[in-house]
Amino acid sequence: MCPAEIPDGRQRGYIIPIGGAEEKVPEAEILNRFVELCGGRRARLAVIPTASQLPETGDSYRRLFRDMGARDVDVLKIESREDGSNEDYISALESANGVFVTGGNQVRLTTIIGGTPMAQALRRANAHGVHVAGTSAGATFIPEHMIAHGDSGATPRAAMVQLAPGFGLTNKAIIDMHFRERDRIGRLLTALAYNPFAVGLGLDEDTAAFIGPDDVLEVYGSGAITVVDPSELSKSTIDQVEPGSPVSLIGVVLHVLARGGRFDLVSRQASI
Amino acid sequence: MCPAEIPDGRQRGYIIPIGGAEEKVPEAEILNRFVELCGGRRARLAVIPTASQLPETGDSYRRLFRDMGARDVDVLKIESREDGSNEDYISALESANGVFVTGGNQVRLTTIIGGTPMAQALRRANAHGVHVAGTSAGATFIPEHMIAHGDSGATPRAAMVQLAPGFGLTNKAIIDMHFRERDRIGRLLTALAYNPFAVGLGLDEDTAAFIGPDDVLEVYGSGAITVVDPSELSKSTIDQVEPGSPVSLIGVVLHVLARGGRFDLVSRQASI
Repeated sequence: MCPAEIPDGRQRGYIIPIGGAEEKVPEAEILNRFVELCGGRRARLAVIPTASQLPETGDSYRRLFRDMGARDVDVLKIESREDGSNEDYISALESANGVFVTGGNQVRLTTIIGGTPMAQALRRANAHGVHVAGTSAGATFIPEHMIAHGDSGATPRAAMVQLAPGFGLTNKAIIDMHFRERDRIGRLLTALAYNPFAVGLGLDEDTAAFIGPDDVLEVYGSGAITVVDPSELSKSTIDQVEPGSPVSLIGVVLHVLARGGRFDLVSRQASI
Repeated sequence: MCPAEIPDGRQRGYIIPIGGAEEKVPEAEILNRFVELCGGRRARLAVIPTASQLPETGDSYRRLFRDMGARDVDVLKIESREDGSNEDYISALESANGVFVTGGNQVRLTTIIGGTPMAQALRRANAHGVHVAGTSAGATFIPEHMIAHGDSGATPRAAMVQLAPGFGLTNKAIIDMHFRERDRIGRLLTALAYNPFAVGLGLDEDTAAFIGPDDVLEVYGSGAITVVDPSELSKSTIDQVEPGSPVSLIGVVLHVLARGGRFDLVSRQASI
């Protein structure tokens, strides 16, 4: 499930988590930037609506991306583990230059697609240069370590967040969404505290991180991204406290980045 | 945190999870096999006692490995995140040909060592050929996805297990220990159900999986290993049920392997 190997002379496609509830009109900033990155009028997109149980989700995005000028938009209706081996869907994915994963329930995404040939195809496609965007549940599922469930609140508390294996497009960040709207900094801090190796990205609604092949992200949209960097963490008590009790953390670094802000996931440097 | 890259012409060292409570006498099967693999009388071992809070744990293993004939045994007393950058410890690790991680609390291991230079050095050492064994907590911490906590019982129930990022020596298996003794098949099934890409290994006490560079494991010791393979899983309800409710799973394959049994983590073939 770790990121697939990038072939010599190629570079990974962009990884684009969106915090949910992004603007959905033809001139919307985030989705237009995605279509443009995928080639604009030459864009061939595949939409994965699996997280959602509303039958119209995939088609709504298809219409929207077509209105934005994308040439081809396929909706891959993966609804069972068997569909995860569907050759037509896999070849549609392989001929796309962008993939969009809708919102819904991220555990539905991993339960249905995890461990299937489609999951492998998606990691391989991204390593070969295909851009992958996801909103809400579709953002959370992107990293190797996925927030499956959790509680609201600003204070980290032991066991307030449930992690599960995600799709493994990157292992440099753990991603949370609807961040300001649902008061999720506590659960993101808890997720990082267990093993402080990754950076936490808390995405507000209508806000996206465009993470380039160089692992530098740039912020688009109307909200902000809260970047939580535990690399200077000197002490944590998460191994000592009971489930539900507050966790002490000393030395967490935090940045808040609005439109145009940048963060390098390797050097851990922020700039505005 | 994914496994480090294996240099050309080298092969990864063995990965050796042990289910806890292994026999600790000079003629003990599992620990002798480990010492022998590391070169017998030429073995240079590093012991990481961080999971344990008993001050004598590291020294007890040092005496035992010396009694078994190992030439050098260093105990790396990593007790704080600062110690995770200690150059002496890192160079002791780099000159070892085997690393042994004791039992205790696996969340202590990840909280103290996760994201430090020591964690990187350990992944790099294993990729360069150093054998890494761990017992109990030291076994659980080995994979990319680690069981941090969980409840007992045979039936998988949503949210009965807490996963956290482990040390990432392999992403082909999720490991549980004291397996028969603490009735843990439910929590292992739950851990796999979220994203059925990995194999589950449930290790009884005094039982070890010697996982070779070819990703074939062989069973040593007096108990058994329960191998749970979800690759043929056709349906799961973990995305639908409430926390605490039983999860339906259709098509999980299970093998029970005692001493001498083998399992290939790539082809998913078992043999006895």
